[in-house]
Amino acid sequence: MSGRLAVIGLGPGPEAQLTGAARAALEAASDLFGYGPYLARVVLGPGQVAHPSDNREEIGRAGAALALAASGRRVAMVSGGDPGVFAMAAAVCEAVETGPEAWRRLEIEVVPGVTAMLAVAARCGAPLGHDFCALSLSDNLKPWATVEARLRAAAAAGFALALYNPASRARPWQLARAFDVLREVLPPETVVVFGRAALRPDERIAVTRLGRADAGMADMATCVLVGSAETRVVARPGLPPLVYSPRSAT
Amino acid sequence: MSGRLAVIGLGPGPEAQLTGAARAALEAASDLFGYGPYLARVVLGPGQVAHPSDNREEIGRAGAALALAASGRRVAMVSGGDPGVFAMAAAVCEAVETGPEAWRRLEIEVVPGVTAMLAVAARCGAPLGHDFCALSLSDNLKPWATVEARLRAAAAAGFALALYNPASRARPWQLARAFDVLREVLPPETVVVFGRAALRPDERIAVTRLGRADAGMADMATCVLVGSAETRVVARPGLPPLVYSPRSAT
Repeated sequence: MSGRLAVIGLGPGPEAQLTGAARAALEAASDLFGYGPYLARVVLGPGQVAHPSDNREEIGRAGAALALAASGRRVAMVSGGDPGVFAMAAAVCEAVETGPEAWRRLEIEVVPGVTAMLAVAARCGAPLGHDFCALSLSDNLKPWATVEARLRAAAAAGFALALYNPASRARPWQLARAFDVLREVLPPETVVVFGRAALRPDERIAVTRLGRADAGMADMATCVLVGSAETRVVARPGLPPLVYSPRSAT
Repeated sequence: MSGRLAVIGLGPGPEAQLTGAARAALEAASDLFGYGPYLARVVLGPGQVAHPSDNREEIGRAGAALALAASGRRVAMVSGGDPGVFAMAAAVCEAVETGPEAWRRLEIEVVPGVTAMLAVAARCGAPLGHDFCALSLSDNLKPWATVEARLRAAAAAGFALALYNPASRARPWQLARAFDVLREVLPPETVVVFGRAALRPDERIAVTRLGRADAGMADMATCVLVGSAETRVVARPGLPPLVYSPRSAT
């Protein structure tokens, strides 16, 4: 069996944010799977076959990719950002664990990429410059009570926060509720960054404070960063402010 | 004033893990600053000047780079991994805040990269596949009591953990103590991954359990990942195991 599966991080979006290893893995594939909009970023070479799918079908998509790899094809599964952060690598591992024994013999390679929080952070300074947490606000796969408990624990302990999946049409209230929870633990002047489509042409980075953070500013393309009590904003004349979390803490 | 400063993430090490944007930013620089071993990874072009420095001198290094940029040079500051994660971007922001007013008018660009925990995670599956925290075990810049409090809070709340700076000659006992703290909160079968030099020729990935995790396995080139109670290990015949944290939680 010579088939293989590469799970590839496309980074924030633009070609320039792709690693050389990710590009090489894309070019080596005979078949490419992924959520449609991510797959649409990839320019296919001659003979390469695209297998786009919907957003919600992650385990099914992983199984289809593994089955094709087991048949001897060189399969790529693409993720936006990094495949290991709220993306396809975990779904592939889960499908291997629960699928046919033959899938455990497949060569599987995860090719890392620049995940959204790092792109947003880069575009405003270093808001994740000290200890931080990455937390998905989606309650599709975990209870909302777990989300709230983790928000409280991380904020109270002084971590900065990167909030993935803050909002979608099917999840309209979660971010507003998350801000309410955080307001119980953090002061109103805590820095909040809405990072939408970071490093893409339609990028929109907005720096505000928790006391007046409006959940309506986030959509599916947004990663929201919340500072700790130590996070600082440096005003600059004629330039956007720098936001940073200092390496030292008291 | 036409000078500028780019703070550039080199990723895990090999050329193939560099993004195109990082490569372009390196090539555009007249002067390159950074910790010696990181700077040594960069092949200098004609006329490019290297300014290597020691590991500890981060604020001084940031100030020297900003001063040179303010004189009109195109300066690059390189970091291993991502510059925003326990690296130089926060030091540059801090130097801007505390330095001469002119530094606030400089064009500063942070170019993200693949940070160590993403490289280690990629090499063993998806151990950071659900909510996770990134935490530096260095107590050079924060009290050790803060480290312990954050370890307890994050582990008890069900986050996976990525431990940066687990050990060095000057900090020999911190990781063993961190494991002791985590053993008070997490079961002994909790998965631990020692990821040394991930994606480099001298890579060494070891998967073990918290109950028998030996801090002596970590050095300065290691990032240690600790799973949650949900993190799983999938054995594979003839291949290394896959470690993953499932997207779903109860």
